[in-house]
This record gives sequence, structure tokens and C-alpha cells, in this order.
Amino acid sequence: MASYDCLTLLTDYGLEDGFVAACHGVAGRIAPELSIIDITHLVPPGDVRRGAAVLAQTVGYLPSGVHVAVVDPGVGTARRPVAVLAPGGAFVGPDHGLLSWAVAAAGGAGDAVQLTNGELWLHPVSATFHGRDIFTPVAAHLALGADPASVGDEISVEDLVTLPAPTSRVQDGEAEGEVMSVDRFGNVQLSIAASEAGRMGIGLGSTVVVRCGRRQLTLPYLETFASVAPGELVAYTDSAGLISLAVNAGDAAQQLGLPPGAHVRLTVTPSQ
Amino acid sequence: MASYDCLTLLTDYGLEDGFVAACHGVAGRIAPELSIIDITHLVPPGDVRRGAAVLAQTVGYLPSGVHVAVVDPGVGTARRPVAVLAPGGAFVGPDHGLLSWAVAAAGGAGDAVQLTNGELWLHPVSATFHGRDIFTPVAAHLALGADPASVGDEISVEDLVTLPAPTSRVQDGEAEGEVMSVDRFGNVQLSIAASEAGRMGIGLGSTVVVRCGRRQLTLPYLETFASVAPGELVAYTDSAGLISLAVNAGDAAQQLGLPPGAHVRLTVTPSQ
Amino acid sequence: MASYDCLTLLTDYGLEDGFVAACHGVAGRIAPELSIIDITHLVPPGDVRRGAAVLAQTVGYLPSGVHVAVVDPGVGTARRPVAVLAPGGAFVGPDHGLLSWAVAAAGGAGDAVQLTNGELWLHPVSATFHGRDIFTPVAAHLALGADPASVGDEISVEDLVTLPAPTSRVQDGEAEGEVMSVDRFGNVQLSIAASEAGRMGIGLGSTVVVRCGRRQLTLPYLETFASVAPGELVAYTDSAGLISLAVNAGDAAQQLGLPPGAHVRLTVTPSQ
Repeated sequence: MASYDCLTLLTDYGLEDGFVAACHGVAGRIAPELSIIDITHLVPPGDVRRGAAVLAQTVGYLPSGVHVAVVDPGVGTARRPVAVLAPGGAFVGPDHGLLSWAVAAAGGAGDAVQLTNGELWLHPVSATFHGRDIFTPVAAHLALGADPASVGDEISVEDLVTLPAPTSRVQDGEAEGEVMSVDRFGNVQLSIAASEAGRMGIGLGSTVVVRCGRRQLTLPYLETFASVAPGELVAYTDSAGLISLAVNAGDAAQQLGLPPGAHVRLTVTPSQ
Repeated sequence: MASYDCLTLLTDYGLEDGFVAACHGVAGRIAPELSIIDITHLVPPGDVRRGAAVLAQTVGYLPSGVHVAVVDPGVGTARRPVAVLAPGGAFVGPDHGLLSWAVAAAGGAGDAVQLTNGELWLHPVSATFHGRDIFTPVAAHLALGADPASVGDEISVEDLVTLPAPTSRVQDGEAEGEVMSVDRFGNVQLSIAASEAGRMGIGLGSTVVVRCGRRQLTLPYLETFASVAPGELVAYTDSAGLISLAVNAGDAAQQLGLPPGAHVRLTVTPSQ
Repeated sequence: MASYDCLTLLTDYGLEDGFVAACHGVAGRIAPELSIIDITHLVPPGDVRRGAAVLAQTVGYLPSGVHVAVVDPGVGTARRPVAVLAPGGAFVGPDHGLLSWAVAAAGGAGDAVQLTNGELWLHPVSATFHGRDIFTPVAAHLALGADPASVGDEISVEDLVTLPAPTSRVQDGEAEGEVMSVDRFGNVQLSIAASEAGRMGIGLGSTVVVRCGRRQLTLPYLETFASVAPGELVAYTDSAGLISLAVNAGDAAQQLGLPPGAHVRLTVTPSQ
């Protein structure tokens, strides 16, 4: 089998404990030469959708790798540990949807394996830290070129759990979506692709009306947050190709009260 | 001398300054090929016991390494800078107890050296950043295979400062301990080994009574936090082999008001 | 051209998103063998002076490298993307001053190039993530030994934007400066070099009067924060060679109410 150039980690483990280092250590013992990239370990505890979104938006920029993702509120229960092979990389984690958006972004699941070969695991296997005891060691072996068939039993890719896609619809002159994520700067990323919205005339220079519940905002669609004066609202195409709302030098999420999951509708006002 | 596969860092330096990067840089200048694992840099400022606990619980999962630990409220004063050699790795840091639990976990101190060879240090040596100027460069030399005798003067391992072990006693049908640490999820780790508690009948399926001051809780001992419904309390064996208390999808430390150091007693109720 | 040993990153991207990992990934695809050091990603959003200070104080401890710095509130607008070559390393980022203090610390700008060769960039280039799409890929090519002339057009080093230096004046028996930064411990770093202050008699053992607005403090100048009792104030020479104020085992910035930028004056009281 082909081996991979790196192993990546995305978790909700935080950075104040030794959990992430234990995963690095376990990988380093198995594959000392492997480079490891930490995607993030600050997914809010148990927030599977947030983890899925970050992984899906980042994977396209990573080297060919084995991507370990563990946001796993059900660790130790019945959800299956899996490895999913896609053209753009291999994904290892719990089969509850966390991996699904990234797998799709990486070209879709080609093969999938349920991790059942305990010989590759760390023993004793803890009930609460499968990142350290199951997912990371299996991923390190895959990165070194282990045959996926050697890590467990093949399962049907149709049976993999997928997260419901975020609402995203463009029709009848209206784009409808939800807040995908809020980044460190307070920029509000919507689930509406700029390319889709372009079909209804939303693009650079247009004036956009954003509706969220009873509230309504009118703001310009420009190239970047710095295209407006500090403190002003703007819509723009973000670095993932999605429509985002920002306040230049401010925190749009806070100012607009738009948390992840909030439902929004966009229309474009005719240019005057 | 044998060299080591990696250098690890554990500090209370935080991540917002350039302190950690300076240590990485100093190590990289001396040993460019060495891989570096950050255990954590978010030990609460000056919290030696917390640093000691994280290091001790993580070291068993790391590659053979030189482990630099700096939580050093007395930097620049009389505490000795030391290197301690154990079967499971070398430990470099201030001799005030921070290293002691990890050294024990790594098989106990074989040899110890007071760092006195200033030729290996960065000059001018600052009074407040020995992590950069003394500990990391010495550790990098050790990782490359420097003879421990070349970094300073041998000292008696009996003279090394050890932290008092946390309270942990199992007898007369009661297990007594303290809160070792609270992790990112709010899970409350006790200083009571699950294997010890097993001697008094605490184990999977038992019902446990936890007493802390005047408060008393009755909760099931199950495999993992997800073994109970969201919001419910549970006791379980954590990934370090210690008894822990959790609220499924919640924050047990906050809900129970149990900070590190709090004294707790456990008994088991007869199964009915 | 000479190549570099490492690539470093300093940004205000935070650690909760996938932004930093995307930069690591982009660099890793171009230069898989390159080691990457994260200086910090927790520069407060848009705080160019803070970023400049951390970079300048850290660069002297890093291996010969290409240093990417992105605190870029004007991303996507007219500020130029540049690479600046200094004896102590190459610096890549927006030309708005962020790089200037570090360039000076690294020996001054020898050559400078405006990044104009789009062939080295990631396409489509986003308007808001030049760290990923422009700065990191160009830096990775430079690290591999690309001729600076191949990444863009030479510009005059005199035209590079420089940040105003912090106030720092020692004369007439008074040292005047400002708060450069506050570290994780709450230590207050002043813009006054200890070596300069030495000319007016401030040094180990002297008693210093600090004036800030109408407030006035008298405190000892000693070797380290641990030279005074817990809770006591002290002035000392910090690890960057600057005068700093600390409270042993406490948070001086909070206690003194001295934020970055606050203006302070120091005098020394005659020893008695």
C-alpha cells in the first residue's frame, strides 16, 4: 500500500492536559519519522458538527495524510471505530458523522474498515481515551503503509454515518442557510457557497439583505472586511469559498448575535 | 552514551508569548534533527503539583526522550537545576519536586546531576528564563548523547526533592483520596487507583458513595461517562487508571464544586 | 542561494480554527522536510505592535529561518506583501510595520522584495487568507533556497514601512518609557533597556520610583521576582534585557493597572 506523508490530529482534548502529547507520543513510538500536524484541539467539548466543519475546510490544504479526528462524546459505547479511505487521504475516528464532511471534501469514501484488529492497539485499552489507545496507533500504522485490511474488517461505505449537511438552498431569488462557524475574529461563516449565491446575483459590489428571525440587515458585498471602515458590517467570500459576515476590526458574531446553527436568508437589492 | 529520540517540554509559559518558541529554537539550533513534543504549556502559573501530575501521567506514552519541565516560581533563586536519569527517560528542570512523580513513573532515579557546566548554557543567562538559557540547551545536548557527567556534578538521588504524594488510602471498606486534577471536560480525577479500589469491591456495576466535607453523593461505577444519560453523574476508571467522576456531556468539577486538592472518601453500597 | 533550516509562523489566527494547520499543510506540501516552529498564534486580533514585539524578542533564539508573520487587519487591501532579507533570517508578511522591529533585531534589512510572482501562490487566492495563499507558500520556496528575485520585484529597503519605536529615553536622571507587553504571568515589560537604565544608576540593589500618571510606586530592583516575598512588587531585568515589573506569585499588570502602551517614568532613589 502507499504510505502517507503525515498524520494529522483534530480533537476536543484541549491543550491544558497531556492528552494531545500522549497521542503524539504514541504516534512517534510507532512512526518516528512521521510528521504530525495539529489541526486543532480546541473544538468545543463534544461539538461534532464544529469538528466536522473545521476538518472539512482544512483537509484540502494538508499533505497526503492519515487524519485522526476525535470528538467523541460516546467514547466507550457502541459507535464503531473506523478508517475511511478517500482519494485525498485516510480518515480515522469514531463513526458518528465527524469524518463525513471531510471524507466528502476529499473525494468521497472509497473503502472503509471497522477497526477490529486489537493487536495494533495500546493495551490495556482505556474506556475513555480511544484517541490514544486505538485511533492514533492504528493511524500511525496506516501512515507507515499498513494494508487497511490489516487494521480491521471491511464495511460498506454506504453504512457509514454521515452528518446532515447544513441547510443551503439558493432559489427564487433567495439564498437560505445557517451559520456554519464563527472564527476567532468573530467572522460569521454561512453555509452558502459564494459560487451558488452568484447565480442569484450576489457578488462583489452588490447590496445584500440578511434576514435572521425578525431582524434584517442591509450590507455591502465586498472583497474583504477591510473594504469597509472600521466598525462597519460587510459580506464577503471567505477563504473556504463561503459567504461570511464581518465587522471590520470588530466581532460580527457578537454584534449580530448570530451563533452557529442560526438560520439566515439572503436577498440582493437591485443596484440603483 | 545512548541518545534519545525526542525532547519534550512541559511548562507554565502559556502560548501567547514567544517563550515556548524560544525554547524550540534553542533546541533546534543545537539538535536540528531532534523531534520535539509539547506536553503542555498551560500549567496554571506556578502550579507545581499540576505540572507534576500531567508529566507523570503522560510520560509513559512518550518516546524515549529528554523531558524538560519548567514550572519554576523560584527561578533565579537557590533551587538547583538538575538532570535526573530514569529507565524511562531523562528529566531536566528545577529540583523542587516537579520532576519527582514522573521520575517515579519512569522507573525511579538512577543517577542525578546538578547542572553546573555553564559552557552548555546560553549567555548571558537571564535570571528569569532558565527554560531557555539552561534547561533546554542542556537537554538538547543530552538528547544528542552527551554524557550526563559532562553537564554537571553528580548528586545523590536521595537528595532530590520529592513532592508529597497525594493522599491515597484504601482500608476498612473506605477509599480516601484527593482530587488530582480536573481536565478540560470537567472530569474530576481522584488520587485513588481503580486497581486499589477494586480490593474493597469498587468496580464496574457497583454503587459508590462519595463524601466530600458534609456533602454526600451516590452514583454508579460504570465503564465510561457515556454509560449514563446526559446530565447524570458517574464514576469510572479513567485513562490513567484512576477513579474519576464525570457528568455525561457536562462539567462534573463545576457541578460538584470539587477543585484540585479537595479531600474525598468513597465507600461502596452493598448491591441490592 | 542559501536555504534555511526552518520556517516559523507568528499570527493572530488563534488555535480554535484550522487556519494554522492550513499554513502548516501548505508549507509541508512544498517542503516536506522543513521543520516548522510556531512562535505564537495568539497575538490579539489585529494587534500589530504586540506581534512585532513578540517576533523581535524571539527571533534571536530561533534557527536560521524564514519567518512568516501575519497580523494583517488590512488583508486584501493595498498594503504590499513583502519578503525582507536580514543577516539573521528572512521575513515574509504584510508591509505595514509588523516585521520591522524583528528585521532590526536580526541585523537590518539587506534586500527586500515585493511578492508579485503569483506562480508561487495558491490559487484561487482568497481575499482574506494571504497567510495560507501567499505568505506561507512563498516562504516555503525561500526556505528551500529559491532566489529572492524569483518571488517578486526588488524594492528599496528605505521604502519599507517601519513601526514607530516605543518611547524609550534615559536622561537627566530619569528613564522614560512605555509598557511593551504583559506576559502570561502578568509581568509588565517596559521599553527601557536595563543596560541603558544602568547609566543612571538603576541596577541590582537600587530602589526605584515608578511614576505612571498620578500614581507613584517605590520598589526594589532585584534579580528576579522570587527575590521578594510572595505578593511583593519588584523591578528586574527580564529575559529580553528590558526592565520589568512583577509581583512575586501575583499579577503585576492587573494589580498596577498597567496595560500595554501605558507611559511610565523611572527614577532611582539614593541608597541610604
